[in-house]
Formats: sequence, structure tokens, C-alpha cells
Amino acid sequence: MPESTAGRVREVRVTPILISDPPLLNLQGVHQPATPRTIVEIETESGAVGLGETYGDTDYLTAIRRVAPHLAGADVSRPTALRAVVDEVLGADETAYAEAGTHAAGLRGKRDLAKLKASVFAVFEVACLDAWGRILGVPVHALLGGRVRDRVDYSAYLFYKWAAHPGAGPDEWGGALDPQGVVEQARLFADRYGFGSIKLKGGVFDPDQEIAAVRALRTAFPDTPLRLDPNGAWSAETGERVARELTGVLEYLEDPAAGVGAMARIHQRTGMPLATNMCVTGFDEVPEAFSRNAVQVVLSDHHFWGGLRATLDLAALCRTYGVGVSMHSNTHLGISLAAMTHVAAAVPDLHHACDTHRPWQQEDVVTRPHAFKGGAVEVSDAPGLGIELDTDALADLHRRWSDSDVRDRDDVGAMRAVHPDWTAPRLPRW
Amino acid sequence: MPESTAGRVREVRVTPILISDPPLLNLQGVHQPATPRTIVEIETESGAVGLGETYGDTDYLTAIRRVAPHLAGADVSRPTALRAVVDEVLGADETAYAEAGTHAAGLRGKRDLAKLKASVFAVFEVACLDAWGRILGVPVHALLGGRVRDRVDYSAYLFYKWAAHPGAGPDEWGGALDPQGVVEQARLFADRYGFGSIKLKGGVFDPDQEIAAVRALRTAFPDTPLRLDPNGAWSAETGERVARELTGVLEYLEDPAAGVGAMARIHQRTGMPLATNMCVTGFDEVPEAFSRNAVQVVLSDHHFWGGLRATLDLAALCRTYGVGVSMHSNTHLGISLAAMTHVAAAVPDLHHACDTHRPWQQEDVVTRPHAFKGGAVEVSDAPGLGIELDTDALADLHRRWSDSDVRDRDDVGAMRAVHPDWTAPRLPRW
Repeated sequence: MPESTAGRVREVRVTPILISDPPLLNLQGVHQPATPRTIVEIETESGAVGLGETYGDTDYLTAIRRVAPHLAGADVSRPTALRAVVDEVLGADETAYAEAGTHAAGLRGKRDLAKLKASVFAVFEVACLDAWGRILGVPVHALLGGRVRDRVDYSAYLFYKWAAHPGAGPDEWGGALDPQGVVEQARLFADRYGFGSIKLKGGVFDPDQEIAAVRALRTAFPDTPLRLDPNGAWSAETGERVARELTGVLEYLEDPAAGVGAMARIHQRTGMPLATNMCVTGFDEVPEAFSRNAVQVVLSDHHFWGGLRATLDLAALCRTYGVGVSMHSNTHLGISLAAMTHVAAAVPDLHHACDTHRPWQQEDVVTRPHAFKGGAVEVSDAPGLGIELDTDALADLHRRWSDSDVRDRDDVGAMRAVHPDWTAPRLPRW
Repeated sequence: MPESTAGRVREVRVTPILISDPPLLNLQGVHQPATPRTIVEIETESGAVGLGETYGDTDYLTAIRRVAPHLAGADVSRPTALRAVVDEVLGADETAYAEAGTHAAGLRGKRDLAKLKASVFAVFEVACLDAWGRILGVPVHALLGGRVRDRVDYSAYLFYKWAAHPGAGPDEWGGALDPQGVVEQARLFADRYGFGSIKLKGGVFDPDQEIAAVRALRTAFPDTPLRLDPNGAWSAETGERVARELTGVLEYLEDPAAGVGAMARIHQRTGMPLATNMCVTGFDEVPEAFSRNAVQVVLSDHHFWGGLRATLDLAALCRTYGVGVSMHSNTHLGISLAAMTHVAAAVPDLHHACDTHRPWQQEDVVTRPHAFKGGAVEVSDAPGLGIELDTDALADLHRRWSDSDVRDRDDVGAMRAVHPDWTAPRLPRW
């Protein structure tokens, strides 16, 4: 049987890289010119190589490197069993994660050891499934119950942005600092990729300005589902006001305010469907949030929920409790997009287009980056994740990492470089 | 790729059978001398045959036969997609199920169309996974995240029983109508199979007699986890009293009373962990039961929860809400036992031995029936479910079905044959 020998892990390679990122604005500050990611390769005795991609920040990279050697000899056909290995290696040292400093995780909800473990497991699980799929000659989705759709819809992910990073020339997208700029960006994304849903990252300007931007999008795209995500920047009162003003305009409002109480109140008083990738980001947060009806759409993310099967688990939870499912995205490349697409293809009740930052990245570590057609990525039936690693690109991006002192995503620091008095905003900001 | 051609369904064979069953007593009455099961074979274009086994009662058999022809051309690598086919074929005709008459389903909680659909899907999903595993040369558990254990522990499933069916000679197990008989039966099961947990089916005699039987088991087996299952026969008051008397004696008490309210009250007042395969038998029943802390252990059952992946979904729900998982069993043969074992092997937090009726069945439709060693079934790494269909046995048991007019499991009717005034008990009985 394949799993008995061919699927045995011979080597795990962990490669930190830096990838270019445009000056996208959010509550915390601005994306740095380069942001770290970690690429994992799991090679089996048979020579199959499975790929995984996740955060590159120091705490993740450190934890991934600690676990990697312990996977030698493991069986890629049995990823669930690796969860115990991750848990054991990372132990009970809460400080390993908590002391690691300022992080963009402020945009992804709680930070604790359980979530770090889930994230570390996830990148290995994806790589195992990819390797296992390659060995068997079947797509990853066929290891998840099989695809229920041929294409996975993604959403345009609009950002307020500067025209250029400080000291750099203008990028291809141009600036977007007002409703007109946002609409122009939306047109660019619609024309290039055909996205049928539009999300605007908010929490950057006064809520009234962001309401105006959403209204401008509605005028320009009368029939396109719209979303606004201020990353919990608002008070419950502000969230309630915005929800009222945008009722009937938004498909859903993402994380208008921080915490279960504020979210529950906003939904209860306005009826606006609320989505989240901050209020509920781990299974331990589900019961309270669901019981209080604080969230109507959970934005799944295999990177921190604990992998592709955990994403199916989350979808089952949501189905059971009548909560919708969509998908969250951080800055990522093609390995993550492939994993997102395979699991999205296998979730029966995925009724919203998934988020993706992918169009903002001009680099990739796969030989043939995915194309968005009609706003969707075709679900591959090729073995594994259906992608091939571009080893030259990986080496180049790793060299960039080695030559740089950027080790963590730090949107606050990047903003401070331009506005020296900038600090991480205290919530609620508005 | 295998799924594109080799995994296409060429033919689905549905075979009703009758299997012998000893005179096991329960709340409803007594097991008939023969009980129906349905065996499903899904044959692919490549000639692989996947097996499934489920209830044989008329409503199930009818629904399975209705769906079967619609699976031709489907892809066994994509079972999740078949759920929509089942839902569509069986439509919205609630009466198809509700009118089918008296059923042993009275021991398995609610009966509605959603549950019937889940059951019908389940048998096809198992057969698809078996076929797909055979095609790929991998065990079914490797399509479910892989096994996390080498052996699955099962529990001795004791019954009050007559020494023989009416008019028949005594069977090999002898009668068990008092504590001494129950202990003797337990010794037989422990000696033959090495079971390390013991469950007694209750709801047959006055609760005090059943308490006495449990105490006798405790004396005879001082360290063995014990369970008692009266199938919801008691009032909340009676359940509370029994729970108090058996605190510290039982691992858990199963369905002492019917309904979320009674279950919640018994647990709240006594602290006794309550298990269920009646109060919560579908995903729609989970939220209320969990929010009211009515059940502390859900007895999963792929036959009616909707298959092997649905069992993993249920396990994820239970994990998230801090509820335990064990496994329910009805009268079954080796195909079901194989499916139960594969999914149990893949559930990380299965902390209780699973129920099985298997030792009570002397027949099987697999060529090499499973052996219980040390109370456990070894998890097979052979392709698919790791079993082979005994086509002669299948033909014999189908002939028995054809030659008989038994079409439904009817414990009430079987009891009435001996006690003409017997009727289905009104709950609570005690």
C-alpha cells in the first residue's frame, strides 16, 4: 500500500521568504514593501514533494522549524495523527507565542498557543495532503470528500492605498484614498479578473468616508455583492450606525466592532449580517459567539483554523448552527490559493465568494500562477494541489529574506516610518 | 486520474437480506428471529466494487432503491456531491417515511425525511469510499484523515434475553432475565472477546431490577466501565433516582428519559454523564441539546448521521462543545463493523469504547468476519474497508428474505406473538 512506505516522510524543508506587497492601508497602518511567508516542502521516501504555505513571522517560523524534524518517518496518509506531534513538540509554553512582539495578528483575532499550534499543524497537513494526492494521482479535494463545484468564486479585495511605498516609484494600481479611487480600483479588478463580489478593507478613514466609498461602489456596480471590513475599528454605537446606513447595500459587514458583545448588539439592533475573522477564529470561541448570535458568517481560514479538514469541521459547525461560511485571506501566494480552492471546492454550503489577496502579489513560488476567470479559480483535478514549485523563484525570495532584516509583518512600524507619531490604534478608534 | 474514468459508477446493486437474531429484549419488545438489512454494492467502470450495509426496513429499502439508479455515472471519488442527488430524488415527500408503519426506529430517536435522506446517503457514501479506496489501494481511514489508532475498542453489549425464540431450541447464549443471568452473559462475552467495557440494554424490567443487575456487574467486574441504556423508558424523576443510585458505578447512563428537558434535568440534578442515541440523532437537534447541556456523550452512528464524513463532523461539533463521543450500534454485520471501525480509527477524541451488536450475529456477508481481540477490532490498512463480500452468503440471506414475509424490524410485533396484549409502551413507562 502506498501509505506504508512511499508515503513516509523523508525530509521536511522549511523556507522563509519575503514577498513584495503594495502599500495597502488598514486599521493598523500600512503593508510593508515586503512581507514574510513560510514555504514548507514535505518529501516522501518515494520522492513525492508536498507543498504548504503560511505566515512567515518569527513566532510561526520558529514553531514550524521546531516541529519539522519530528515529522521524519511520519506517514503523509495520516495527517490527523500529526496534530498530536505538533501539540507535543510545542508543549504548553504559552510565552513562546505571546512574547514574540507586535504582529499583524491584531487583524486576525486572538493570539494564543492553541491557535499557533493549529496554524503550525495546518501548513504540514496541507503539505501532507498534497504529497499524498501526488502519490495516489488524485487531487486534494478528492481526499476531502470530493469537489461539489468546478470553480471557486473569489471576491475583489479592495484597499485604500498609497500610490507608492515611501521612496519608491508608483505601482501599477495607483492610489486609492477616496471613493473615486476605490471605484477605479474596483474597475481594474473587475476588468482584469471578473470578480463578481467586492470587499473593501475599511477601518482606515472616518466611517462616513467609508460609507461614501461603499455607496460609490454600489452606484458603479449596482448588482455586485459588497462587503466592508473595518477590522473591529468601531464602537458598538458606530457599528450600529454604519450597519443601519448600509442595510440593503452590503451583503455583509465584517467585524464592525471588537468582541462578541458588540457584534451581538449590532446584529440584534440592525439585522445586518455580520461576518468575522476576528471575533471567532478558533473552535473554542464558537460556542459563545453562536449562542449570542454574534456572527452570521464565519470567514474560514485553513491557515489558522487548523488545516483543510478543520475547515470542513468549521463548515459543519456553521451548517448545524445556521451560520454562513465564507473565506478569509491574508497576503499569500499560489500554494495557499491552491489549498483554499481545494477545500472551498469540497464545502457544500459555501454561499459567498472567498476573499483573496492574491492579485496584489506579482510574484509567486508556483510555476503557473492561478488565473482568475470570471472572478473564479477553476478547481484542479490534477494530482495533489495541482501546482508545481518554482524552485528558482523560491530561492530568489528566500535570498531576499536572508538579505533583509524584515522578519515580521509590522503594519504599525511601516506606517510609523512615514508618520513617526503613529501607534497601534486603541479600539474602538471611532 | 482514477476518478475521471475508473471511479465512475457502472452499476449499483441493492440486496435486501434477512439475518438471524437472538431473542434480545428491549423496551419495545423483543428482537425477531430474523431482521432485515440492506447490502449495497457499487461497481465502478474499472470493476472495483464498494460495499455498504444499512437498515433493511421497507422505508429504507424503498428509498435506497429509488436513489440507486440515479448514481450511475457518478464519481466515487466525490461522495459529498451525491448528497444533493439523494436529496433531489427523495424530494420533499415527508409521507414517504412517516407512513411506513411501526418501526424499531422508536429506539433511535426522531424519524423524519431529513434523517431518512442522511441514512440513504450514508450507505452510498460508505460504498463509494470503499470502492475509491480499492481503486487507489488505500484504506478508507486514509480518506478520512488517516487512523490515529491501531485498534478500535468495542463494548460488550449485554441484553436481557430469553433462552430461545418461541418454538425454537435454546441458543448458545442462554437466557438472561435476572442479575445472575446478566453476569453470566457478561462473562461469556468477556471470555470470548475480551471486551473491556460493558453495556446493558435496560428498559425491560423495573428500574430496581436493572440497578441490581448493574450492581452485580460491578461486583463481578470491579474495574470495567459500565453503561445502562433503558432507551428513554423512564420519567425524569425515575431517571434522576437511578442516576443517583448508580453514581460512581456507571461510566455513563444512556437515554434515561425521553426529550431534552428530562435529560437536562437529570444531568443537572445528579451530575451523571448522559449519553444518547435518541435525544440527539441529527444535526438539527444538536444546538438545543448542547445549549441545555442535555447530553454529555453523543453516540455517533454513521448509518443515520449521514455517513463517515458526517461522523467526523459530529465529532468536531462534540469536541467544540466539550461533549464526548462514543458510537451506537444496531444489529449489523461485517460491512457495517468495518465502516464503524474505519471512522472510529480516524476520530481523534473517541474516548469511549464503541457499541456493537456484532457478536449476536452468527452470520455474515464478508468472507472473513472480524475478530474481537482484547475487546478491539484491529484497524485494517488493506484497500477500502478491508473486507470481501461473500457472494454465496449474500445470496443465501437474500433467498431467506425472498422466502419470508418479514420486511421490517418489529420488536413490538415479535413480543405480541408471545404476549397477545403487548403494545408499544407509552413513555415514560416507569
